[in-house]
Amino acid sequence: MTGLREDRYFDSEPTVRRNARALYDSTRALPIVSPHGHVDAAVLAKNEAFTDPASLIITPDHYILRMLYSRGVPLESLGVAPIDGIPPPAEMDPRKIWQTFADHWHLFRATPTRAWLDYELREVFGIRDDLSSASAPRIYDGIVERLQSPEFRPRALFRRFNIEVLATTDAPSDTLEHHKALRTEDLGGRVIPTFRPDTLFRIAAPGWAGEIDRLGRATGATIRSSADMLKALARRRAEFKAMGATATDHAVIVPRTERLPDAEAERLFANALAGRASDEDQGRFEAHLLMEMARLSIEDGLVMQLHPGSLRNHNELVHRRFGPDRGGDIPVATEFTRNLRPLLKAYGNDPHFQLIVFTLDESTYSRELAPLAGHYPAMLLGAPWWFHDSVEGMMRFRQQTTETAGIENTAGFADDTRAFCSIPARHDLARRVDANYLGGLVARHVIDMSDALEMARSLAYDLAKRAYRLT
Amino acid sequence: MTGLREDRYFDSEPTVRRNARALYDSTRALPIVSPHGHVDAAVLAKNEAFTDPASLIITPDHYILRMLYSRGVPLESLGVAPIDGIPPPAEMDPRKIWQTFADHWHLFRATPTRAWLDYELREVFGIRDDLSSASAPRIYDGIVERLQSPEFRPRALFRRFNIEVLATTDAPSDTLEHHKALRTEDLGGRVIPTFRPDTLFRIAAPGWAGEIDRLGRATGATIRSSADMLKALARRRAEFKAMGATATDHAVIVPRTERLPDAEAERLFANALAGRASDEDQGRFEAHLLMEMARLSIEDGLVMQLHPGSLRNHNELVHRRFGPDRGGDIPVATEFTRNLRPLLKAYGNDPHFQLIVFTLDESTYSRELAPLAGHYPAMLLGAPWWFHDSVEGMMRFRQQTTETAGIENTAGFADDTRAFCSIPARHDLARRVDANYLGGLVARHVIDMSDALEMARSLAYDLAKRAYRLT
Amino acid sequence: MTGLREDRYFDSEPTVRRNARALYDSTRALPIVSPHGHVDAAVLAKNEAFTDPASLIITPDHYILRMLYSRGVPLESLGVAPIDGIPPPAEMDPRKIWQTFADHWHLFRATPTRAWLDYELREVFGIRDDLSSASAPRIYDGIVERLQSPEFRPRALFRRFNIEVLATTDAPSDTLEHHKALRTEDLGGRVIPTFRPDTLFRIAAPGWAGEIDRLGRATGATIRSSADMLKALARRRAEFKAMGATATDHAVIVPRTERLPDAEAERLFANALAGRASDEDQGRFEAHLLMEMARLSIEDGLVMQLHPGSLRNHNELVHRRFGPDRGGDIPVATEFTRNLRPLLKAYGNDPHFQLIVFTLDESTYSRELAPLAGHYPAMLLGAPWWFHDSVEGMMRFRQQTTETAGIENTAGFADDTRAFCSIPARHDLARRVDANYLGGLVARHVIDMSDALEMARSLAYDLAKRAYRLT
Repeated sequence: MTGLREDRYFDSEPTVRRNARALYDSTRALPIVSPHGHVDAAVLAKNEAFTDPASLIITPDHYILRMLYSRGVPLESLGVAPIDGIPPPAEMDPRKIWQTFADHWHLFRATPTRAWLDYELREVFGIRDDLSSASAPRIYDGIVERLQSPEFRPRALFRRFNIEVLATTDAPSDTLEHHKALRTEDLGGRVIPTFRPDTLFRIAAPGWAGEIDRLGRATGATIRSSADMLKALARRRAEFKAMGATATDHAVIVPRTERLPDAEAERLFANALAGRASDEDQGRFEAHLLMEMARLSIEDGLVMQLHPGSLRNHNELVHRRFGPDRGGDIPVATEFTRNLRPLLKAYGNDPHFQLIVFTLDESTYSRELAPLAGHYPAMLLGAPWWFHDSVEGMMRFRQQTTETAGIENTAGFADDTRAFCSIPARHDLARRVDANYLGGLVARHVIDMSDALEMARSLAYDLAKRAYRLT
Repeated sequence: MTGLREDRYFDSEPTVRRNARALYDSTRALPIVSPHGHVDAAVLAKNEAFTDPASLIITPDHYILRMLYSRGVPLESLGVAPIDGIPPPAEMDPRKIWQTFADHWHLFRATPTRAWLDYELREVFGIRDDLSSASAPRIYDGIVERLQSPEFRPRALFRRFNIEVLATTDAPSDTLEHHKALRTEDLGGRVIPTFRPDTLFRIAAPGWAGEIDRLGRATGATIRSSADMLKALARRRAEFKAMGATATDHAVIVPRTERLPDAEAERLFANALAGRASDEDQGRFEAHLLMEMARLSIEDGLVMQLHPGSLRNHNELVHRRFGPDRGGDIPVATEFTRNLRPLLKAYGNDPHFQLIVFTLDESTYSRELAPLAGHYPAMLLGAPWWFHDSVEGMMRFRQQTTETAGIENTAGFADDTRAFCSIPARHDLARRVDANYLGGLVARHVIDMSDALEMARSLAYDLAKRAYRLT
Repeated sequence: MTGLREDRYFDSEPTVRRNARALYDSTRALPIVSPHGHVDAAVLAKNEAFTDPASLIITPDHYILRMLYSRGVPLESLGVAPIDGIPPPAEMDPRKIWQTFADHWHLFRATPTRAWLDYELREVFGIRDDLSSASAPRIYDGIVERLQSPEFRPRALFRRFNIEVLATTDAPSDTLEHHKALRTEDLGGRVIPTFRPDTLFRIAAPGWAGEIDRLGRATGATIRSSADMLKALARRRAEFKAMGATATDHAVIVPRTERLPDAEAERLFANALAGRASDEDQGRFEAHLLMEMARLSIEDGLVMQLHPGSLRNHNELVHRRFGPDRGGDIPVATEFTRNLRPLLKAYGNDPHFQLIVFTLDESTYSRELAPLAGHYPAMLLGAPWWFHDSVEGMMRFRQQTTETAGIENTAGFADDTRAFCSIPARHDLARRVDANYLGGLVARHVIDMSDALEMARSLAYDLAKRAYRLT
């Protein structure tokens, strides 16, 4: 295996590498804290064997789908089912899907997808071959064989991965039945939900009324007003908290924050119920609800996460035919200094409030986010996210935020993954990159080794626990 | 020569340097594919001897002019002729111009201009001295002597440079006579035009009506409508294609794209003919024409290049006195995600369409361009352009785009130069920087050497041929 | 001391380090030219002993305050006096303040604050212990002891620091009495004022009328019009110049520049006097005054500095309770290409004009500022400022501006500090980082060592003198 050398991702300069290795050795065996991700709790609750490498690794991974699609590989050939009913249908043979993927493996050179999968094949599945067109069938068989054994059931892997906490992401109307079921299981760690009510905020979206209905049913109430909705949200937050949740999550395109007068909020809500909400209405209502979420966070103690700046489903053809999360989400420039000001004015000095902010716009690291997090007690920087969860991306994050905000105003690593088996790969990569970053600082005498050892542990473990109130 | 050490531009860390040298050794002798540049085809068609170092190297180079001007050197003293007739006139003595340049050579330390010229002096002209005030006359004489010999005629250099394809940039009304003449010559490679109709798109510019006239004469038609213009453009595209063109090129400030209703396009055109087009009219008409160019690209197979974000002739005094391309073009922040959406919605999934996008706004590399190119089948990233065609600039491009888009969604290197003799210098620099980038990835075990060797060849040669359909 | 190794901030790669050390050795003993800072001239004029480490180092330093506050340390506990009279009052015991600071020293790991203070403790105060909770009392006592000796009086330190020029920042109504007093003292260097009239430009701010009054009193004139104000400003500029000033400084949020018709300027001024100026009025008036300042600069030869892009007092709670400069200033995205165009059109080609532009928006380095400074004779790039005055920040500045603008279009280093004792620390850090940057270029054969030695001296000394006309 080429991508899995012992010193991978460390600078080759001997002093840096020696430092990096020592630092990584001090964190590699720490338990995994995964405070933000998209694994389905049902996978662990049901604990059924994964069926095959294609449906486990390829079809659900938007990083893989986007790259293959960009080079002309039809999504149908990767097992992605069209939802518009128009032929051709999706390829159903997982072996063929796997082969198509392997035939295009060179596209992923120098990408994090390759780094993660190299780890997954070797460390999770014990495959010793490099992936290639030729080795693809053999590797496929090897994975299938392992998937059939009890050691590769989800809960066995959970234990093997040494996961202390795994947070999922869940809709406000979710029954949390799987989380409930898991609370009585001995997993060697806990699985907790995260409250993510985005769909209820998007009052101009076609499905919004249905979301309101679902929330109503989930809370046994009829929701006829903004006040009703907030009451229902508060109730569901409490129920999530009872199932172990410590955080909420909010995705918007523009991170506007603004408290509206009650009457104005109600007017927007009534408009929306009547199907007349405009995009600007939605922007204002979202801005208002972010303020309300912060207020509720102070009451119930749930940490608030904000993920702005992704224009979802940019490719309308792909979205119409295949639905969301197929690789067509594209970032936009994001403004934080002015947009977050009302929220930070109201709550940013409150010791009970914790706000974790992520970005896809790296130009804001040094310009806005580090200065904000390096001043407001309530605000922390989220881990480098999505496209930036990579060797170079994480390095840029550290280099552009640490000098202003320090590492203590960051929230540690979050793998943000749907792919359960990639969890240890992602944490391993992050620990290596942080070890290399710190090892470089030691080599340049910016910090000394005893500092670096404490910082490495913080980045790998302590900061996430503290930021997400998981202690 | 200090700037021309064998291992120049490679990291000094021995592992990286060893890798980089091996990779560079594998690409240094590959033919040059130059898919985008500004050499005048007449130079090769006429094949006259270059006259002197000043008019060859200094006066036409906006990189050199801008730097000298910024430190107080009058453009007149560099042989740039005022077009306003106001004294002082331009210096006419090339030897004096050369001396003035040499006297300010220190200004170019650590710039790509210096790297290119070091190469040009040594490798193209065989000069062994470092340039300085003292050596300037001797070097001047050395160059003049060589320019008089047949080996330094343009076509001999073309052959010596090992150029497989050289694309020029040409106005839609260009007769292409020089390209026609060159098709019967055995150059050891081909010279092809590129269709660049920008001036026809700028309906608010003073010279627009004249451009329309010229296009009419070139196509033997009277152009009285937007439809007429599009018909003429389509016809000229076909004629360019017949002369070997494989691409078009389009420069706008903001990359808006939007198909207008026919009636609206005609209204804007009529307004423009009447001399009443506003800047906003022009913006909308350009947005419309970009859509039309994409549509025509699908029909005739010409690759579409987009170069947005340069505010031309920022310095009105310099522009008025000396004309365009004197160093006064300044970039502006550029938005792609929303601006390109209509075009990508219409054509981005079409396998017959190829769009190559360049930028001067590096903050868009990781935020917008790599995610777009890493998803849409039709879109590729153009090489780091203009101010970013440099050691650090190319490194940032690779570091900020590869992890998301891979290298296969990029279009290889483009030298973009007016200076014929600098072509091998620019390709050599690019091959070295890419070798160093890949050598660093190998040293960190991100990729292995066999991957890197294939990637190095792709970056130096294959990608440009594929992206520009030059095979 | 860990933070103060002889080779600190140099790459560990032996070739780079060897080069960096040689370059640093050539600049380390050069006199300090500090052309932009915030030391109070009274400190040197009165030459009283500093009282204690807390009031000397902690309470006035917004870098320290912001970081501690962000991690929950109340500003009151750091000796910052509330101005709203609401309890709790500020901690008055400097020993306790020092201890609180030391208890949170780990927060500053890998920040420039730590680098500066490590230097200050060791090199200025001769403290040999690392700062920690345990060592804090001992170090406190050590500093106090030294502060009582004559060698630690401000003027003795000034001489020891080898300061050739120290520029302060002063309001237009300042009497400059301390500067006057210092002109007769033999300091071994000079202390000069800088003319900073921002508060007079902010016609929508509550205190504006009072500022106008103060200016009137300072000039013995009644100011009833924009023309009166400009006359007074011109007069004060002359008086500043007579006290040695060579520069003005201007802070705005958006760097708009636009000459207004006289009548319009007077209308805005009259409106403002009547207390009716809007934010947009202020923006236009500031744009107009920047043009006027440039015009006056050409007349009186004062260099014009522009510091845009900081949204001051973002945290209203902190501002209301503690006043300005407590860590609550946050940058915003800044546009230069279009905003500066009117000013550069009018004055950018004038050899008598010198404009030094700073930014907090690093995305503008390569996109706008380096291209502008690399073209306009009048414009120079200011040093990396504030959050970017750091190891990584300075490196990014060099890497992103040098290839386009060269180093000769930059203005050298400016420490921008309020903390007198940190001056040598900041210059030492900058000299080291520049030596490392240049040493890396030499190692990669981008430049040779003789180039690098000249460049190192320019960056450490010559460029600042030339840019600020201090020769």
